[in-house]
Amino acid sequence: MKKIGKQTFSIKDNVFVRDTFTIVGKKEGEGPLGDKFDMIVDDDLWGEDSWEKCELKFQKEAVKHLMDKNNLAQKDIDLLISGDLLNQITSSSFAARDLQLPYVGVYGACSTMALTMGLGSLLIDGGFANNIICVTSSHFCSAERQYRLPLEMGGQRHMSAQWTVTGTAAVWLSNGGSGPRIKNVTFGKIQDLGVKDANNMGAAMAPAAYDSLRQHLEDTGVDYDLIVTGDLGTVGKSIVNKMFNEDKKSIEKKYDDCGTIIFDIEKQDVHAGGSGCGCSATVFGAFLYKKLLNKEINKLLFTSTGALHSPTATLQGESIPGIAHCVGIEM
Amino acid sequence: MKKIGKQTFSIKDNVFVRDTFTIVGKKEGEGPLGDKFDMIVDDDLWGEDSWEKCELKFQKEAVKHLMDKNNLAQKDIDLLISGDLLNQITSSSFAARDLQLPYVGVYGACSTMALTMGLGSLLIDGGFANNIICVTSSHFCSAERQYRLPLEMGGQRHMSAQWTVTGTAAVWLSNGGSGPRIKNVTFGKIQDLGVKDANNMGAAMAPAAYDSLRQHLEDTGVDYDLIVTGDLGTVGKSIVNKMFNEDKKSIEKKYDDCGTIIFDIEKQDVHAGGSGCGCSATVFGAFLYKKLLNKEINKLLFTSTGALHSPTATLQGESIPGIAHCVGIEM
Repeated sequence: MKKIGKQTFSIKDNVFVRDTFTIVGKKEGEGPLGDKFDMIVDDDLWGEDSWEKCELKFQKEAVKHLMDKNNLAQKDIDLLISGDLLNQITSSSFAARDLQLPYVGVYGACSTMALTMGLGSLLIDGGFANNIICVTSSHFCSAERQYRLPLEMGGQRHMSAQWTVTGTAAVWLSNGGSGPRIKNVTFGKIQDLGVKDANNMGAAMAPAAYDSLRQHLEDTGVDYDLIVTGDLGTVGKSIVNKMFNEDKKSIEKKYDDCGTIIFDIEKQDVHAGGSGCGCSATVFGAFLYKKLLNKEINKLLFTSTGALHSPTATLQGESIPGIAHCVGIEM
Repeated sequence: MKKIGKQTFSIKDNVFVRDTFTIVGKKEGEGPLGDKFDMIVDDDLWGEDSWEKCELKFQKEAVKHLMDKNNLAQKDIDLLISGDLLNQITSSSFAARDLQLPYVGVYGACSTMALTMGLGSLLIDGGFANNIICVTSSHFCSAERQYRLPLEMGGQRHMSAQWTVTGTAAVWLSNGGSGPRIKNVTFGKIQDLGVKDANNMGAAMAPAAYDSLRQHLEDTGVDYDLIVTGDLGTVGKSIVNKMFNEDKKSIEKKYDDCGTIIFDIEKQDVHAGGSGCGCSATVFGAFLYKKLLNKEINKLLFTSTGALHSPTATLQGESIPGIAHCVGIEM
């Protein structure tokens, strides 16, 4: 069986991350990665009449641009795997409707990018597909009104709150070509230490990030150049560092978090940093992937983290379960 | 590549449906399959304080019973794949939290059972897992209040409306053993002919069912003994028959729908029939699987159908996208 250790799936040298395409909103475009995204959309509706419709346009356009750029026809794509934050993952489903590709929808909240890439790489290694497109998205406005409060209220944001990234990344996985290869995939177990505060997702997700990272590192024994989590922000990142330090297995020197990479936290007034499915997705597509391509790093552990927060469950007194999926990528 | 035709993934003889466990509510227990379910729960809260918490208990208990019955320990299960109808698939995520298994969450609305079984069988055939548990659930009360109207209103139901099944099925897929084997999997493309009525899901899903069935039959050429869709009910079933008849490729004689099997439509006052993730799941687990085991049928095409209905998208003027995933199972 292609499983190593307790929880990690091992892949031969045959799954390549062939290309990516990223689209972000205005605020993300003004951040430190501004010149690295493929497209920046200034209008938070992008000509649509709702934020939700705008978000699905992000996904659809990213996939179309990725396919066009690489001369990929519909028949070349064996499967589209996607998910997002909205109820019934409408951005993904409506984009898939327009793209007319065979479609697997997933839900992992902000862990979606690693979840789709993990699944996609197993299916390619298993011999079922030559080309798979993985995509996810989030939109500050659609997420804020679904998960928290009406934007029109203008409520003050908590200091531990994160800023949902408006953005999407489409990732083309292929069994041919060159470039970075996906080598090891760990699907996480849910961790929940009882955090109930929808304005402190970093704390809700950190135990899951620690658990999956620890398991992945133990299972594979790979010495990564860079370990990156999805969207823990400053609060969650410091908890992960603390948990590893308590283990006497510090990862601090080679560890970073997409939520702290995508924004200039001080200048852009985003409090604890970025979040949302689009956070780890766009940071991977525009920044980390290119670091691998340019051989600035050779071994990347990409770990998207998800807070499976449900407003209904919270109203019923439940806490917020966290999950993290790890994808080990090597150049 | 293990792909046949345009859209179907072909599996060697190594993925067995080893066992199932089903739990249903009172109304389902009073229906024609009443004596076939593993457990019937009379109380629509099952001792919990909300319908949502009751639904997650259904999932959790089904998996626990399935594991206990087969002496499966936590370490024997390589992956749990699950999804459900609720926002943020809370039944699945919270059940996965308590089960502490590596977890992949999917969203396919009522197409979830075939979606999880399809993914699971590809991962086993790909060599990544020996044992995978697939599970899904729905609950009449939690679905009704999320997707339609408060139950307390006591509104009159449309004649084309379906009755969401309260139930769950856990399915154990394994690369060893004996019994029915999953042979071919087709993940559907989304079809949407513009239906906007949340009380006519059968019509919204029928074009997707037709599209995936037609593609699967064309790709595989298998002459199935029985073709079953998930939860089209009387309305959707008649549309599928009509679409195949117009093609001059009638499947009428060997075609049925779980939504018309699970309830006595006249006597139980369910209007167009059953629906929900639990519909095709429990009919498969309690009835179709046993038909295969007993060799009453040898070749089953199991097709769960999903209406990716979003109340938000509908309020924004959108129609309801449909999807159908096919799993060909042979004894």
